[in-house]
Amino acid sequence: MRNFNLDKYLADGKTAYGKRSDIEALADKLTQRGFKNIVIIGIGGTWAEWSPVVHVMRHYTDVPIYLENAAELCIKNDKRFLTKDSLVITASASGDTKEILEATMMCKQMGIEVAGFSKDTETLLAKELDYLIANPCGDCEDSYLMFFLLGLRLLYNRGEFPDYVKFADQMANLHTNLVRIREEFEPRAAEIAKNYAKEPYSIFVGSGTLWGETYLFSMCILEEMQWVRTKSVTSAEFFHGTLELVEKDVPVFLFKGEDEYRVLDERVERFCKTITDKLTVIDTKEYKLDGIDDDFRIICSPMILTAIVTERLAAHYELTTGHSLKFRRYYRQFDY
Amino acid sequence: MRNFNLDKYLADGKTAYGKRSDIEALADKLTQRGFKNIVIIGIGGTWAEWSPVVHVMRHYTDVPIYLENAAELCIKNDKRFLTKDSLVITASASGDTKEILEATMMCKQMGIEVAGFSKDTETLLAKELDYLIANPCGDCEDSYLMFFLLGLRLLYNRGEFPDYVKFADQMANLHTNLVRIREEFEPRAAEIAKNYAKEPYSIFVGSGTLWGETYLFSMCILEEMQWVRTKSVTSAEFFHGTLELVEKDVPVFLFKGEDEYRVLDERVERFCKTITDKLTVIDTKEYKLDGIDDDFRIICSPMILTAIVTERLAAHYELTTGHSLKFRRYYRQFDY
Repeated sequence: MRNFNLDKYLADGKTAYGKRSDIEALADKLTQRGFKNIVIIGIGGTWAEWSPVVHVMRHYTDVPIYLENAAELCIKNDKRFLTKDSLVITASASGDTKEILEATMMCKQMGIEVAGFSKDTETLLAKELDYLIANPCGDCEDSYLMFFLLGLRLLYNRGEFPDYVKFADQMANLHTNLVRIREEFEPRAAEIAKNYAKEPYSIFVGSGTLWGETYLFSMCILEEMQWVRTKSVTSAEFFHGTLELVEKDVPVFLFKGEDEYRVLDERVERFCKTITDKLTVIDTKEYKLDGIDDDFRIICSPMILTAIVTERLAAHYELTTGHSLKFRRYYRQFDY
Repeated sequence: MRNFNLDKYLADGKTAYGKRSDIEALADKLTQRGFKNIVIIGIGGTWAEWSPVVHVMRHYTDVPIYLENAAELCIKNDKRFLTKDSLVITASASGDTKEILEATMMCKQMGIEVAGFSKDTETLLAKELDYLIANPCGDCEDSYLMFFLLGLRLLYNRGEFPDYVKFADQMANLHTNLVRIREEFEPRAAEIAKNYAKEPYSIFVGSGTLWGETYLFSMCILEEMQWVRTKSVTSAEFFHGTLELVEKDVPVFLFKGEDEYRVLDERVERFCKTITDKLTVIDTKEYKLDGIDDDFRIICSPMILTAIVTERLAAHYELTTGHSLKFRRYYRQFDY
């Protein structure tokens, strides 16, 4: 696979999975400390990565979970849910995401402890956190893996996700699956990029557990890293405006999931099939997960999607457009 | 003003405001019945119209409020918050919005009462509702007015919005203000439409109390009724992807609000000013509200925005593009 370092990928995956015992120890310590609600703070890509984790957790738990945008949390008046009894969790790999840092500092000033993920112990964020999971990996599936391990271990400790140990054991098989799935998807990635990477505008539709990744790929990858104009919309909302934009030659990407929202995705698929010749359906269900129970497929679905789309499809967009995924003209280039 | 029937507008406004006593009686009855949480069901435009109402209510109340997408509510597994102790509220002017009807029917099957707004007593929705406010008006500000009257009366009854009577009294002055504000905005509406109605793509940014209307105008008006490609994004999230799309000749619309999120809008304004020549800032603060206390300006801000943008600016887009706001090629034209 082009621009894919297999050895590094597997080594990074091993390191991320190797954080399991640290994460479990942290979850157990936080459980012992106690909490009345969980407040998760993200922004942009991190907000989107936490989205399916929160989505799945809400499926199992009675504890109120708030998924907050860091910049909004800092200024909004109605944050009575944020107290010393909250379990606050955040993440910034670089550790210098301005809004995440500010939100963390705000919590600390309120006397509220913050747990979080950052690449090492030396980042600005790491130094502010009360509880740190340090991991240098940058692959989105590693973020998902670590976030799910923490979130589901917390629920396991509450008796709400009894299958945690089986789940965590089977996650040892995640990365080899995601390599094979990448390889299976590779010819499609090349084909899709060839057909659509130079399109001036694309619509992205997804729902439920895959909504975060749908939003992330269209905004954080295509808009930010490829300067491609996109519209992302949920499968339910698609029918209340965006559908009128679909024409024979308008590209629509549907990311079809495996949770109960799938019926909403199928409705979008049926409609779009009759209108556009440029419909791309990416269905995580088509990809086998060896050594991982079907019960955990929904949890793994955003990991599959990020591997094949946010990583592989993006790589092929870059190869097709020649526009480097690393180049930014504004983002983090100067103060704003 | 072109395509604006002043007499009808004022008469419709009077009718909507005339529902005040019915709405208050309903709120009082629902208060007496009791509820542990409030579940509001919308989709597309109605979801967006409820968004600022919920936003403002959350500012004042301790009662948990859930703003749910009707289609998602019907199929999602994690709806333990929806019980017989919930106060469920919905709205569909036409009364035949498929997803709203299905969600209402689902609640009824669960033995849960539903209160709602519909144009008259004969719509499909009206016949399903346990409590109905019947009002034929179609102006978005009338929806906002009725929704706020209901929501804030409920809080008043809980001792959480003591200024309710003053607020409701002053809403008698709303429509004359919104006529004058329309007239003040009219030359700008013509100018903006002349400059941007034929642009192939526009970015819309807003936040907080104005986010719903930002989302609504870009999706339900421009996408659905003008077939204009748009991206709507919150002021906080703008900086995590979409900013890279801004260029000298890319139109950006910033809807600047009056709540505490304004600092996030100002950041977008400062950034965009340095990049694009096509920045349009619409600031509700520039429009006076005679006979309405400053304390209620945040509540009125989406009403101002809908009057000048969703109604007047849309009318001028239509005059400029020649594309009728009434024409749909797919939406509600056939089964999908």
